[in-house]
Amino acid sequence: MANIAVLGHGVVGSGVMEVLLTHQESITRRAKEEIHVKHILDLRDFPQLPYQNVFTKDFDKILKDPEVKIVVECMGGLEPAYSYAKASLTNGKSFVTSNKELVAAKGAELIALAQKNNLNFLFEASVGGGIPIIRPISQCLAANEVSEIAGILNGTTNFILTKMIREQMGFQEALGLAQELGYAERDPSADVEGADACRKICILASLAFGTHVYPEKVHTEGITKITLGDVAYAGAWGGAIKLIGMVKMQDDGKIAILVGPMFISRESPLCNVDDVFNGILVRGDATGDVVFYGKGAGKLPTASAVVADVIDCVKHFKARKYLYWEDAKPDYVAPFEGMKGDFFVHVQGPGASDQAFAAAQAVFPRAARIIRKDEEPGEAGFTVAGLTQAELEENLERLAEAGVEVCGRILISDF
Amino acid sequence: MANIAVLGHGVVGSGVMEVLLTHQESITRRAKEEIHVKHILDLRDFPQLPYQNVFTKDFDKILKDPEVKIVVECMGGLEPAYSYAKASLTNGKSFVTSNKELVAAKGAELIALAQKNNLNFLFEASVGGGIPIIRPISQCLAANEVSEIAGILNGTTNFILTKMIREQMGFQEALGLAQELGYAERDPSADVEGADACRKICILASLAFGTHVYPEKVHTEGITKITLGDVAYAGAWGGAIKLIGMVKMQDDGKIAILVGPMFISRESPLCNVDDVFNGILVRGDATGDVVFYGKGAGKLPTASAVVADVIDCVKHFKARKYLYWEDAKPDYVAPFEGMKGDFFVHVQGPGASDQAFAAAQAVFPRAARIIRKDEEPGEAGFTVAGLTQAELEENLERLAEAGVEVCGRILISDF
Repeated sequence: MANIAVLGHGVVGSGVMEVLLTHQESITRRAKEEIHVKHILDLRDFPQLPYQNVFTKDFDKILKDPEVKIVVECMGGLEPAYSYAKASLTNGKSFVTSNKELVAAKGAELIALAQKNNLNFLFEASVGGGIPIIRPISQCLAANEVSEIAGILNGTTNFILTKMIREQMGFQEALGLAQELGYAERDPSADVEGADACRKICILASLAFGTHVYPEKVHTEGITKITLGDVAYAGAWGGAIKLIGMVKMQDDGKIAILVGPMFISRESPLCNVDDVFNGILVRGDATGDVVFYGKGAGKLPTASAVVADVIDCVKHFKARKYLYWEDAKPDYVAPFEGMKGDFFVHVQGPGASDQAFAAAQAVFPRAARIIRKDEEPGEAGFTVAGLTQAELEENLERLAEAGVEVCGRILISDF
Repeated sequence: MANIAVLGHGVVGSGVMEVLLTHQESITRRAKEEIHVKHILDLRDFPQLPYQNVFTKDFDKILKDPEVKIVVECMGGLEPAYSYAKASLTNGKSFVTSNKELVAAKGAELIALAQKNNLNFLFEASVGGGIPIIRPISQCLAANEVSEIAGILNGTTNFILTKMIREQMGFQEALGLAQELGYAERDPSADVEGADACRKICILASLAFGTHVYPEKVHTEGITKITLGDVAYAGAWGGAIKLIGMVKMQDDGKIAILVGPMFISRESPLCNVDDVFNGILVRGDATGDVVFYGKGAGKLPTASAVVADVIDCVKHFKARKYLYWEDAKPDYVAPFEGMKGDFFVHVQGPGASDQAFAAAQAVFPRAARIIRKDEEPGEAGFTVAGLTQAELEENLERLAEAGVEVCGRILISDF
């Protein structure tokens, strides 16, 4: 029998209990041992639960219980999760977590600590909820050099954008609906400002390229500035706006990494990933493009990924698992300003739309105009190709000086 | 150093060598041992190759070499692959294969043999080429009851159907193009008649539900009878025709399994899987729908999956891996005749289209007509809901007796 402790009995933690209880027989068969939850840490009482007697408010009780071999953390947030992870891994307990903030901020340190003590530190649930992605990248794609990863990593913002695209709902209204349906938190900033997607692309980048990337090194934009006008131009251009986290290995050994809204062509397998679904594209030199698609969040999908990690831990008590990356190194993340790309630019001039576009052409001689229905007077949208972010900004400043307001600029993806 | 032997130096076998040579450093790092190809079995000579000295025409030399720990089979076909697999697994050598015919026909026996001798029998490359699917189903989804799998499992037929849908190319012409481009063999029957997709859904069904399913138990239809008229009706209905392999666990513990063309709604994540790509949907009680997408065939994608298995073998020399299912049991596959579904029916009457549909309504009172552009005189298309295959056939016979020719019937998918 494998004794485990679960930290936190919120959405994911209670989901873990539900998955363990409803699938007891098949899980035992797969783990080749019965998995027994000996403790659940939560400050609240749950007198109505059949397993109420295993609750504790004291983490030390778990830490000092030599029978507990695996600690499963479903609390979220950096503290006390980080302290509990360190304490567990220095006291002979493997650690399984669904906490992307923890892995993105402390992954390299906790991986090294687990390795030193011959324990497992697993976090499949931290990216993509129930979509298997951490394992496939590290294991199935082992015979493959990954060159690029790009994904729709946040279901909340994808839901909001889908509503804006399909029903011409404004951002605020779509956000309100997402909150009403429980897809967005009361404070939605981690989702809509891109921080959640940023943590996830940092984890994927660290894993794929073997060097930790900290979220604060990554240029991150959310979707709060996206307008229905932008959405309409994207449709007229032949695609849709999605919030993308992407990382690409450059020839110079640095990585280009960013989070932001992007124009995605209708030909891309990511363009049809709608609503709360996530889609992650992994480009490898041997496999070509492989895409993983599914619900990226939610109680049971996330819990099933956590439990899969627990099963893996139980089966590998005597062997460390394969997840590994080194700590960050200086100058590894290429400067955002130098990143080259194609862009959509959305402008508003004081006169007619034709005049606004003519002013844009004076600055960007090769601008390609996008024609859309219901353009406002003076509004224009166009694409420009092959500029660095710095060059783009410089030119947009010149355009503003010429009296044309720049409403937005959005990167055009190349996958 | 881990010594391996590769059987066959065709497309996949030479791809395995290419992946091993071009990724030597990263593979060694991941496997924690250098992987050395000591023998390659092929009847041909390859005097131009830098590794020409490792070729042999004698399998016994490999079998009797105690240094060879893993035999990698990339020959295809049932024999001699099956004999070589048995000999390897009874002589202390793990076996990795890309051969779907072998796994579909002999999987249960070879898995049992590997288990008995504490060896690995791995076959990630047998389904989905470079798409990780065997491992995710068996491992990542361990905490999840899979209820259904449905997939576009054959790239050749998907390419042909895509050409028929997008360019109104007839079946024969599209097949000719596929052959010209090297996507289809000179004898394309295994692809276009559905046998290839059938082997793959058998492997996935065996793995997901733990009991071997032999291809000869599975009702299999190909795409040779699909017409441009069918394709147009599918478009008018709101979707597309795809060749699908599907398996579903029924409440009575039997499985419904079949391979055939199906109407797929535009809302389904499988509808946009085009060209030579494969897409596999795995429906689980906890995860919901997870979809895996990528190139299902080709030299390097398939080879990279083979090499990933080899790496896994090297890392698990002392432990058996997790793939397991039992041999077939009687009455496990639900009879095709009793399988219930919704169908598209395509008819041709002697008079006007309205008359043909009126005759159809006499037999199927709740038939829903599909209107499409450019209908031929007397042609009609309609859907019927909730019939067993036997009921459908019976009613179609009555319709034929009423003088209306039945040109085709196609299942409508419910995913």
